[in-house]
Amino acid sequence: MFDVIAFDADDTLWHNESIFTMTQVKFREMLSSHGPEVVDQTLSSTQIKNLRHFGYGIKGFILSMIETSIELTDGDISGSEIQQVLDFGREMLVAPIELLPHVREVVEELSQSYSLWLITKGDLIDQETKIARSGLADNFSNVEIVSNKTAGTYAKILTQHKVDPLRFMMIGNSMRSDIVPVVQIGGHAVHIPYTTTWEHEQDHPHVDSDHYSDLDHIGLLPKLIREKG
Amino acid sequence: MFDVIAFDADDTLWHNESIFTMTQVKFREMLSSHGPEVVDQTLSSTQIKNLRHFGYGIKGFILSMIETSIELTDGDISGSEIQQVLDFGREMLVAPIELLPHVREVVEELSQSYSLWLITKGDLIDQETKIARSGLADNFSNVEIVSNKTAGTYAKILTQHKVDPLRFMMIGNSMRSDIVPVVQIGGHAVHIPYTTTWEHEQDHPHVDSDHYSDLDHIGLLPKLIREKG
Repeated sequence: MFDVIAFDADDTLWHNESIFTMTQVKFREMLSSHGPEVVDQTLSSTQIKNLRHFGYGIKGFILSMIETSIELTDGDISGSEIQQVLDFGREMLVAPIELLPHVREVVEELSQSYSLWLITKGDLIDQETKIARSGLADNFSNVEIVSNKTAGTYAKILTQHKVDPLRFMMIGNSMRSDIVPVVQIGGHAVHIPYTTTWEHEQDHPHVDSDHYSDLDHIGLLPKLIREKG
Repeated sequence: MFDVIAFDADDTLWHNESIFTMTQVKFREMLSSHGPEVVDQTLSSTQIKNLRHFGYGIKGFILSMIETSIELTDGDISGSEIQQVLDFGREMLVAPIELLPHVREVVEELSQSYSLWLITKGDLIDQETKIARSGLADNFSNVEIVSNKTAGTYAKILTQHKVDPLRFMMIGNSMRSDIVPVVQIGGHAVHIPYTTTWEHEQDHPHVDSDHYSDLDHIGLLPKLIREKG
């Protein structure tokens, strides 16, 4: 029934949001005289303001932390504190990739019977090095790194590879990026929530379709695919 | 004779290096107590050290400038100076795209007879917004944004699109990224030097091939293609 099964990467195959969350804890501590809510709110609004120019990814996050720290202190931040933020960033960039439970078995099993793709949003070099470090790269016949995941993005990729949306399944943790646009173009989508999802991703239209399923964890995916097939 | 004619973007279709050069002048002025050579050398070695993690692009350049300013001042840099560096970055990100002479006419003329591609190295969101702002996007049937341009990169793209290297021509300003790898896989390549090229790009093996041409400017390209065809 499916020619291609595509996976989102961050927070679907491996932990990602948790690395940002842990860094933000350290950032809050560094600016502890300002109160955690103020730091979080200022960082969040700086990130959203910068998204159009910076895109998603670690480098943009570091730059937004630096900008936030200058704004909150009215410029009264030291070079060594800024250096600390740069160091947070470097730690994020080399953080080991922790696969989510069941991911390795499921990806290896499905790769025996299906063309598997990765379709991931973010910074090109961040994503490439994460895929390489994940140890999963050989299971994927196609990797698409995109700046945004809209219905148009998916339609373009499927047309380019001559894949019928009816024979395409996308698996991911974000309703807005992985599920809604895929169902809109007639594909199948499986939502597997991650423990935390960035608030900016949670705003999405309602989905009501036979082509949409919810799973508690990725270990249940092979059974779902057999049932649909 | 050619099925696809592909162009590099930065410093082949539009000015790019000059935006970095102009920013570096301002950065040098900001750190004027340290002497221009020291600033340039420290920035250059910081950039090369960071390249593996940051990749090419404006965000990585901003982060390297910030790191350089902290290093050169032993941490004695003010928040407002760091803010100045962030502002340099923001100016770079929204700088208007200045096409090089003859580019618009040549691209529009060739798009009548050939599939034109863009193959560009760099930061995903930087490159996407530059292509959009260039006003040239409609002339290209395929845009590939890659983190590095090796023979393997080109081979993979051509295989994916089922294009014979013998019927592929690449045009660009970098011997190392646009010419050498394309000639290595059996394609045709046309080198059009830009006035300045980042020193890191200038180190490349010798090319000796019928498949390699040099042009003074892109206005001469249609004639060269007619002669080869």
